[in-house]
Amino acid sequence: MPRVSQDHLDARRRQILDGSRSCFARFGYEGATVRRLEEATGLSRGAIFHHFKDKESLFLALAEDDATRMADVVAEQGLVQVMRDLLAEPAGGTSSAPGAEWLGTRLEVSRRLRTDEEFRARWAQRSEQLTAATRARLKWQRDAGNLRDDVDVDVLTAYLELVLEGLVSHLAMGLPAAHLPAVLDVVEESVRRHRGS
Amino acid sequence: MPRVSQDHLDARRRQILDGSRSCFARFGYEGATVRRLEEATGLSRGAIFHHFKDKESLFLALAEDDATRMADVVAEQGLVQVMRDLLAEPAGGTSSAPGAEWLGTRLEVSRRLRTDEEFRARWAQRSEQLTAATRARLKWQRDAGNLRDDVDVDVLTAYLELVLEGLVSHLAMGLPAAHLPAVLDVVEESVRRHRGS
Repeated sequence: MPRVSQDHLDARRRQILDGSRSCFARFGYEGATVRRLEEATGLSRGAIFHHFKDKESLFLALAEDDATRMADVVAEQGLVQVMRDLLAEPAGGTSSAPGAEWLGTRLEVSRRLRTDEEFRARWAQRSEQLTAATRARLKWQRDAGNLRDDVDVDVLTAYLELVLEGLVSHLAMGLPAAHLPAVLDVVEESVRRHRGS
Repeated sequence: MPRVSQDHLDARRRQILDGSRSCFARFGYEGATVRRLEEATGLSRGAIFHHFKDKESLFLALAEDDATRMADVVAEQGLVQVMRDLLAEPAGGTSSAPGAEWLGTRLEVSRRLRTDEEFRARWAQRSEQLTAATRARLKWQRDAGNLRDDVDVDVLTAYLELVLEGLVSHLAMGLPAAHLPAVLDVVEESVRRHRGS
């Protein structure tokens, strides 16, 4: 057996995650067949399942990867920016805008949270990562004097997460999105320090 | 055959809708078996399906009934009040708070909107009823000088509907609700006329 470097393994794992992300985003979990995953990643099923035990493990790794990347964007740009990214363009493109492809993963995660109690428990930790990043960002904004200071940071965190959940659900239902950029302006402004206060 | 008065028919129809509402709320669409519908309504399957062709028709009648009642609450008290009602208490109680039982219907409607394109088209009209009631209420509030006037009413309507969708999804996932009343305060305040402006 040839020896394979860790760098090579990591690169291959990344290739599989990135390819399957667009596949899940485009076809949903059920629709992302092994054949489609092969096409999307450019790898054989043997190679894919060498790195991930099964489709379920691959999806969970992807969901965790996305949660980490979302938390990174939140830390640098805030949760409203994550929501703007979600609006950026429909899934399936080759654009580097990460948001559109997150949507597919978020939707499947939301669906499982509703229907699968075991998954809910397992996911709690991952979801805490995004909450923690959002809270830290808001605290930082408050210290910088940019955030309203008459409402608890935990409440503002819950507010932004609720809007994110609404946005994911709205887009999943294929409802009109024309007003949503302006809606996100209202949301962003409503956590800011008020004019003159 | 005995002649049955229209009043009697209406009352019976109402009895079936009210009984099955709590049954759908508690067990979900799939879990609301004919046997459970019989128990919940206190009527035989023969009586139930004399009034409604099948379970699907019963559910749609219920969803339409709820949409109308939600629009009524919106017209009188606003969409934020509908959301407060949703938080009032978990489904299945005998309380007269309508919101908790709306949740079951809303969830099933949301699920179908995501997965059933035909339903999406049929439901568009009903969903427009709630949007229209919300918009009318906001216009009235603006004329009364209570609403902020720097953002279009259509945008504020979309904002409130997005939060409602997030709330339904959040509750469906069984996530913690402790901060939600304070979150709704933030939402309500963010559509109001600003202090001093």
